[in-house]
Amino acid sequence: MTKELLGTDVVVQIGIIVNDIEKTAEEWAKFLGVTKPEYIITDDYELAQTEYRGKPTKAKAKLAFFSLSNIEIELIEPDDEPSTWREFLTEHGEGVHHIAFKIKGQEEKTQRLEKMGFKLVQKGEYTGGRYTYFDSFPRLKILLELLEND
Amino acid sequence: MTKELLGTDVVVQIGIIVNDIEKTAEEWAKFLGVTKPEYIITDDYELAQTEYRGKPTKAKAKLAFFSLSNIEIELIEPDDEPSTWREFLTEHGEGVHHIAFKIKGQEEKTQRLEKMGFKLVQKGEYTGGRYTYFDSFPRLKILLELLEND
Repeated sequence: MTKELLGTDVVVQIGIIVNDIEKTAEEWAKFLGVTKPEYIITDDYELAQTEYRGKPTKAKAKLAFFSLSNIEIELIEPDDEPSTWREFLTEHGEGVHHIAFKIKGQEEKTQRLEKMGFKLVQKGEYTGGRYTYFDSFPRLKILLELLEND
Repeated sequence: MTKELLGTDVVVQIGIIVNDIEKTAEEWAKFLGVTKPEYIITDDYELAQTEYRGKPTKAKAKLAFFSLSNIEIELIEPDDEPSTWREFLTEHGEGVHHIAFKIKGQEEKTQRLEKMGFKLVQKGEYTGGRYTYFDSFPRLKILLELLEND
């Protein structure tokens, strides 16, 4: 069971890659009947320590978040530097990139997913936590993300 | 608010279009640590009354379902007849097609979404209920589905 694997089987987030975050956030805000949130920009490399396919990358993204009652929608507009976000946009175009689980013990959970053959494709730090993406797309048709908040 | 628009803001399902439901269901079952569910096949036209872009269609799909604690994953393998599933596979390849909301009053909710400019793209009946897809992809980068059970 996912609960044993990851300690949770709650999907906390659906992440969507977009070309134009202002435009798509405007549309989501209209649909949800909420005020358009301001996007945030992910941290510079010094803070984010982003690694993509095992190498440091300067990649950043604009992010906007919408809360529904059981799940969060994350919009992601990547820049042109190498990242899973940019790779997805190039290969698949706009659309859903990942689902996320909120976990404790990132290293242990990462090892468990790697043991199952899911490849760690990108990781990084944000204020108060860290994320890890696994390239499960070929098998699950969606990427998996682990989020760990301190 | 979505709650006023649809009477709910709970995303009950993430729908994923796949080329080979047996293969992808096997991978999801492995990831989730559950037994691979048998796929079901949607009903024939006589029962399903499927309409795609305003016209009757014989399109059918194989479906497989996985329950996580707050959301359901639906895998969909379309046949070659015209449908939103086949259209998505042709245009985008495999990946997430829709999120679904469980509603009451399909006609009224459909009118509300159409008034917002979301186009009804496909609808059909299943035992105990009916579904409607709206082509919100250009705006939300995902389709919306309304599910009404009797």
